[in-house]
Parts: sequence; structure tokens; C-alpha cells
Amino acid sequence: MTTKEKRTDPIRIGIAGYGNLGKGVETAIASVADMKLSAVFTRRDPAAIRLKTPNVPVLPLDRAASWKNDIDVLILCAGSAVDLPEMTPALAEYFNVVDSYDHHARIDDHFNNVNAAAEKSGTLALVSAGWDPGLFSLIRLYNGAIFPNGNDYTFWGKGVSQGHSDAIRRVPGVADARQYTVPVESALERVRNGDNPQLSTREKHVRHCYVAAEDGADRGRIEREIKTMPGYFADYDTTVHFVTIETLRRDHPGLPHGGTVFRTGTTGTDAPNPYLIEYHVKMASNPEFTGAVLVAYARAVYRKARRGETGCRTVLDIAPAELSPLPGDTLRRALI
Amino acid sequence: MTTKEKRTDPIRIGIAGYGNLGKGVETAIASVADMKLSAVFTRRDPAAIRLKTPNVPVLPLDRAASWKNDIDVLILCAGSAVDLPEMTPALAEYFNVVDSYDHHARIDDHFNNVNAAAEKSGTLALVSAGWDPGLFSLIRLYNGAIFPNGNDYTFWGKGVSQGHSDAIRRVPGVADARQYTVPVESALERVRNGDNPQLSTREKHVRHCYVAAEDGADRGRIEREIKTMPGYFADYDTTVHFVTIETLRRDHPGLPHGGTVFRTGTTGTDAPNPYLIEYHVKMASNPEFTGAVLVAYARAVYRKARRGETGCRTVLDIAPAELSPLPGDTLRRALI
Repeated sequence: MTTKEKRTDPIRIGIAGYGNLGKGVETAIASVADMKLSAVFTRRDPAAIRLKTPNVPVLPLDRAASWKNDIDVLILCAGSAVDLPEMTPALAEYFNVVDSYDHHARIDDHFNNVNAAAEKSGTLALVSAGWDPGLFSLIRLYNGAIFPNGNDYTFWGKGVSQGHSDAIRRVPGVADARQYTVPVESALERVRNGDNPQLSTREKHVRHCYVAAEDGADRGRIEREIKTMPGYFADYDTTVHFVTIETLRRDHPGLPHGGTVFRTGTTGTDAPNPYLIEYHVKMASNPEFTGAVLVAYARAVYRKARRGETGCRTVLDIAPAELSPLPGDTLRRALI
Repeated sequence: MTTKEKRTDPIRIGIAGYGNLGKGVETAIASVADMKLSAVFTRRDPAAIRLKTPNVPVLPLDRAASWKNDIDVLILCAGSAVDLPEMTPALAEYFNVVDSYDHHARIDDHFNNVNAAAEKSGTLALVSAGWDPGLFSLIRLYNGAIFPNGNDYTFWGKGVSQGHSDAIRRVPGVADARQYTVPVESALERVRNGDNPQLSTREKHVRHCYVAAEDGADRGRIEREIKTMPGYFADYDTTVHFVTIETLRRDHPGLPHGGTVFRTGTTGTDAPNPYLIEYHVKMASNPEFTGAVLVAYARAVYRKARRGETGCRTVLDIAPAELSPLPGDTLRRALI
């Protein structure tokens, strides 16, 4: 499985959607030598968008299809709630695509829709890359496939949940908000100690909300509406901190995140021997970290598409070496 | 890449070498539903070996070839210094094989030798599985391929190094010994803090030796010979504890080990944003943990060989899903 490709032209990447994640992908492309950004597609007014990369066109998304011969892999940087379920199958008609679809419960449906579109068009797609789903999925797969006797634990944070921040912003009287998901340290410790605890939703994470209220808004009502919001906050111990909008923007400017995947259990039969696996990530910029994952998987998609593969894949289907720009012998010498 | 195989016969595994690792592989096979142990091959007297698994033959290693049609994958449980460089290519003539060859600097040579033998015979081999090389190699690959701007750190321990324990046992006057490799906690903390330190060999690990001396042996000389031993101890801060042989066997009966792989660096260009990835394993039984990895990779080798693949592979060439007995849609629903 050594990569014998000698093509030196950079892999031509397109970005569809230029929000935080699209910018993170752009940054990741600028960090690697074997790729170049060829075009950005947007549903906003292209004239209003200024890229960090010089001399790259910004075009209306509905003109993307005409670029099908000029882009090797298109990375879709849009939301999972409404956009990607439509966009990924639609754009897989024209392009090899990578997305970060993250509705865990619906990933297999999304996979099947994208697979049908890609098989029909002879393109290759990879869905649900990122860190969770993505890197954490890989770790969960390795852990469970290799160590059948054990328990999985996934914790998120400390970090900003954009979905929960948005949910707070929809409460009447809220001017802006930032929500931090924080793992409960004592729960992490119980897992690390090999206690194999049963943990409820409330026992695993707490939620801290920094909220700037509009002038004259009823803070008591806002706090109650946040804390009782079903699906987002009702099942958690939630703390609401009211701050001025200036403080919010000064003290909470970034999008840091992180998380931890554990597996704990035993090997052995007569004398069970405990083991612990802990995978932890921490990032100052969630969009840049996620963008780096998408770009590495775009490299794998490019290679596999050149070998004639079609249909849909996930990170579980990609051999690790496909992600690296380095040849197999270099990888064996440097990394094994 | 969904696995459509419906074969319900268990995968027939052979073990060559029945020391600690061979026993760990046997234990791992007993923990999975889709495999069975078919035979154990040994260079010792087969009559002297009693397996934990009932009704499995123990046979001389030099009769292994006659079992070529009765074993799907042969797992080689022998030493890397002398045995595997000969055994893996030789047995790849007859079998699909998996080994745990661990001389990092010579892995690419070993790979090429095994690849030539396997290609010639139409078999499939996977070398250097385990936790390091193995799981740690995977993590280093993912880290570096996805995050090009960063530094790698690998720490081992706290755990028993069998190679270092053996080296102490060769010192005249030593009856038995157990050597623990221990990472330096302050070095781990500097890495976790994102200091990106340059660490010397001495700054990363210390070595603790529990030594039972023979009656009348010169302990001062033994301690000096251990601490100045080139390649093993001279470059480390080494502590020697003399204990009785009864204490040694009572307090240090197991083969625990562990280790940590880090990558720290930045994403971003104008405003570099730090990230940290930490992968940590801890195991009470190194041979059982390693055995579980070998068995999961044997499953992948079996599947790929059935699809007609030949030659040599490493863990870097195996898509994660190939390790799991579960079908692709189940994996997507449960793990992504």
C-alpha cells in the first residue's frame, strides 16, 4: 500500500461555505505543501467576502457545478441541522466531497444518501470528519475492536458549544451569549481510577453560560428559560453569569474546545487485568483544529478517488497512511 | 467498504511461540466470538506445555508447514532480536502471519524481507503490531498527518521492561531482577503545558531496578555494573534497590506497563492557536494487552487475505473498520 504517486501538482481544494469552519479549512490548506485552495463557494454575496489566501475566486454556490473539472476535492463547511443533509448528496453529483456532518444519531442515514449520490455519479465522498465525530470515532473504534471487554466514556470540554450558545441567543432579551461545556472532574477521576461508573448526563458535564442581557430585560426570566430549556440545559447543572456585552466579547473571544475518550476494562479471563486508555484533545481554535482534520481526509479522498474508488466512506474506512503526504517507507522509518 | 461476509465459521488462529506473549494471544482469542485457537507451535518439548484452551494441539514448530490449510492466520509470538527476523519471512511462505517485531530502527528492513516472502507465496503479513510499535504508531501517524505544525513526544511506563530486566540478570551475582521504566512527571507536565521542550533521554525517564543478589555477591559492584551499562542504563538516572528473592517475587509478580504519546503545536497562521493531543495507556498485563492488539490485526489480515491481498502491511495500512467484527452500518450507528 505504499503510495507510488509522483504527481507534483498540488491537490486542488474547494471550500463550500465560508464561516468559522471554512476559514479553519483555509488555514489548514495554507499549512500543507501538497494542496492549494482553488475556489470558495458561498451563498452570501461573494463581493462581501475577503479571503486570507490571495488570488482565489469567491463564487456563488449555485455556480459550483461549472468548476467540477477544476477541483479535486470539495470540502463542505456548513451546518448539520439543515444544510449538509441536502448539500452533501447534491454536490457529490459533481465533486469528490468531505463533510463534518455531526448529528450522531442520523449519520448512517446521511451516509446512505451520500453513498447513493456518489455511486450514481462515480465520485467519492467522506462524511463526518472532525474531532467528534472524527478522531474520537476512530479512537472508540480501535478501543472497542481491540479490547472487547470494557466500557467507553466520552467527555466534551472544557469548551464553547456553538449550538448551546445559539440556543441562549434565541431567548428573548439576550443580546449575546457564550456557553462552556465543562466535564465534571470527579467523574473523570472515577473513570481514570477504573471504577467503571454508570454516569448520568448530569453527572458527566456542567454548563456555564455567559450572557449579555438587553437593557431592561428580566434577568430572572432569562435565567429560568435557559436552565429549563429541554434538550439543551434541563438535564444539566447550569450556571448563568450575566456580564456586559463588552466583557463577553473581551473575555470570551475564541472558540476553544476539547474532550476525552476513555476505555476501561480488563484483559484476561481467570485473573482479570485492568487496563485504561485515555485520549485527550485540547484546542484553542475548534474551527482550525476541525479544519485540519477535514483537510487530511481530503488528501485521502483524493488518492482513493484517483484509484477509482466511488461511494461514501467514513473515517473508519480510511487506512491511517492515506492521510499522510509522506511515502510508506518514510512513515515506517519515522513513526512505527 | 461494509463487510458483507456472512461466514460464520470462526477464524482459525495458530500461535507460534508460547511464552508470555503467546499466552496473552491465547487469552485474547478466548475473549472474542469470531475466532478459535487451532494449534500452538513451539520449539520446546510440546509435551511439557499445557494450554489454557482445551483440546488444542501443541506441535513442534518445524511441523507447522503441514498445517497450512488448517490455519487462517498464524500469530508469531517470539523475540525481535533473533527470532522474528528469520521466523516471519520463513512462515509467511505458508501462512498469513502477524508479528510484533519491535526494533524500531530496523522495521523497514524487516517489512521488506517479509513483503518479498509473502508476495512470492501469495500470503498476507502484518508486522509490528502491539502498543509500541502498534497503537502508538497509529497515534503518531494521525497526529503528524493531520497537524503538520507540532512536536511529538513518546513516554513509556511506569512499567516493567523485560529487556532491561534481562540485562540486569546477566550481571554476575544477580539471582533475579525486575526493572521499571518510569516517566519523569515534570517532563510530562512541561509537555502538557505546551512548553514544547527539548528533552534529553535522561530528562524523560528514570529507571528503578529491584535486584535479588546471590549470597555473598558484591552489591557495590553489581550496582556499578548496572548503572554504567551502555545502551541500557548509562544514559539514565538509575536507582538500584536490593531485595530478597522472596520479596522480588511477592511484590513484583506482574508485567504492568503503559505509556503516553503527545503532540503539541499550533494551528493557525497569523494568530497561532495551541492544541494538545495526549494518548495514554496503562495496563496490568503487557502480554495480554499486546495479545489483544495482535488478535484484532489478525482479523484484519484474515479479511484482506480473503479479498486476495498479498504482501506485507503495517498498522498504518489497515483501515480501522477492518479490526472490528461488527458490520459497517452498526459501527456507524454506534461509534461515529
